[in-house]
Amino acid sequence: MRILVTGAAGMIGRKLCVRLAADGAIAGRPIETAHLVDVVVPAPPAGARFTTLCEALDVAAPSTAAKAIAARPDVVFHLAAVVSGEAESDFDKGYAVNLDATRRLFEAIRRERERSGGAYRPRLIYASSIAVFGAPFPETIDDDFLVAPLTSYGAQKAIVELLIADYSRRAVFDGIALRLPTVVVRPGPANRAASGFFSSIIREPLSGREAILPTPETMQLWCASPRAAVGFFLHAAALDLGRLGPRRSLTMPGFSTTVGEQIEALRRIGGDAAVRLIRRQADESSAAIVSGWPGRFDARRAQALGFAAESSFDEIIRVYLEDDHVPAVA
Amino acid sequence: MRILVTGAAGMIGRKLCVRLAADGAIAGRPIETAHLVDVVVPAPPAGARFTTLCEALDVAAPSTAAKAIAARPDVVFHLAAVVSGEAESDFDKGYAVNLDATRRLFEAIRRERERSGGAYRPRLIYASSIAVFGAPFPETIDDDFLVAPLTSYGAQKAIVELLIADYSRRAVFDGIALRLPTVVVRPGPANRAASGFFSSIIREPLSGREAILPTPETMQLWCASPRAAVGFFLHAAALDLGRLGPRRSLTMPGFSTTVGEQIEALRRIGGDAAVRLIRRQADESSAAIVSGWPGRFDARRAQALGFAAESSFDEIIRVYLEDDHVPAVA
Repeated sequence: MRILVTGAAGMIGRKLCVRLAADGAIAGRPIETAHLVDVVVPAPPAGARFTTLCEALDVAAPSTAAKAIAARPDVVFHLAAVVSGEAESDFDKGYAVNLDATRRLFEAIRRERERSGGAYRPRLIYASSIAVFGAPFPETIDDDFLVAPLTSYGAQKAIVELLIADYSRRAVFDGIALRLPTVVVRPGPANRAASGFFSSIIREPLSGREAILPTPETMQLWCASPRAAVGFFLHAAALDLGRLGPRRSLTMPGFSTTVGEQIEALRRIGGDAAVRLIRRQADESSAAIVSGWPGRFDARRAQALGFAAESSFDEIIRVYLEDDHVPAVA
Repeated sequence: MRILVTGAAGMIGRKLCVRLAADGAIAGRPIETAHLVDVVVPAPPAGARFTTLCEALDVAAPSTAAKAIAARPDVVFHLAAVVSGEAESDFDKGYAVNLDATRRLFEAIRRERERSGGAYRPRLIYASSIAVFGAPFPETIDDDFLVAPLTSYGAQKAIVELLIADYSRRAVFDGIALRLPTVVVRPGPANRAASGFFSSIIREPLSGREAILPTPETMQLWCASPRAAVGFFLHAAALDLGRLGPRRSLTMPGFSTTVGEQIEALRRIGGDAAVRLIRRQADESSAAIVSGWPGRFDARRAQALGFAAESSFDEIIRVYLEDDHVPAVA
């Protein structure tokens, strides 16, 4: 089978490609070619036994969608996006990438499907976000709760979810939107996501560096590890999506924790010295964005469909230490 | 004040313009000019004491939005849309008009606002629909229930609702989306809305003509009269929209009835002879579209904000007889 990954140079995109290379197959069907695209050339995953075409394509360019779909990929992992903080500060760029470019991708699939006489109908797996929800919330958000985002990023993700449901209903593709929890602990340098500090307050102290906490310790988050997030995409690629019915958006499992509980887990694993590297420095704009995100979900529907994640922050830190930790150079 | 009405030649658009002409003001502020646009030239409302510019503009044309916003209308009533049946049969046209043209209108407002140095910020009142909801439903749909449309029309309306919330949050305009109930009894010839038969089974028999009922009598609908619908728009034009907070979509009041109860109201007002003119003829495609629409709502939020509608189908038929009925020529 042929696969396409957009945003393949991003943190989750890279890890997804590494796992695809290791597995070599999706649901028992061998991967023959992988087309990996991003604004910068993605690195080919080590050890892949399939052909990889790694290409720098800006999804915001009008010609990109047709190029990405020309080879008729069987599975499209659509991860390319402008992150929350940037979509809030740059209105035009957020809509251009997160909405318009995504819609062009969907339309390119529709045109390719028409060219194929209806034979071509790929599976499309989309990285959505719990940022589609906005306060006020009930104690726990279930699958019937209103989508009412409080950021442009959340609005763009919610709009794409509606498009995915409509295009899937019309059998243009077989789509699913995975509402990712806050993914922690992110490795590497911080991106412009407003949620970045949830990772840096763990990652930086574990490497002996200072990190800034811009919110109170009572701030709640719904979280899962990068490893779990990659697992969601792979599970969605193999799942019978007909089981979803017309509602194609699913809140992914995770667990609810607070910044204070994150810090206590850091203390258990990294000691008091690590915790002392967290510096409190209030930042209104970050706090305003993330405080509009909900901290507790009922992800029963996704769990019943076999999606799984961690259940404690200690476990998440251990996943980080196994997969991504770069020890401090003494 | 200056007003703009798109879809001004449509059934509700025409009635809205007639009421604006009669009132001559919104919330005590006199109307100075009204720009009425539609794909065909709208008729100027009789007796208006303000200047009317009636123009044939296709909202799907890229230049239309700038033309419509150039005069900086203080209130924009955006009613122009491809109706449900047509948006389902013509995918491209539905998205081009209901989504893309609407977004261009919003962007034209944004550009005009930038040109004005931030001084220009109109009120925008949008005709949304209960078609944003899709089965399965709870017994009664409240304001926190999931938006999950089962038609392309509903998806387009739901997407525009998300845009209205985001543009309002960013103070580009002060917007509100009114989710209209099924509007009955529609006068005049049937349009391509799948819900048209809810009107024709009343209107046609009252004028001595046969009408076709494509669904079972148990079919439930949430309905209000055209007069009530116009009232919603006028009320929204005068309301302090800040009271809505960030959730800018409101299910309008109406009441729940069934086709069977509609027919019994017709019998009380038009007699058995009228009822005998209803011919049962199952139509899968109409039935499939409308059966995905919900029949019962909790519109408490809108009612608390002062929106009001009828509470019985007899009352709706009487409104039709007063406002629109054309007696049969003997």
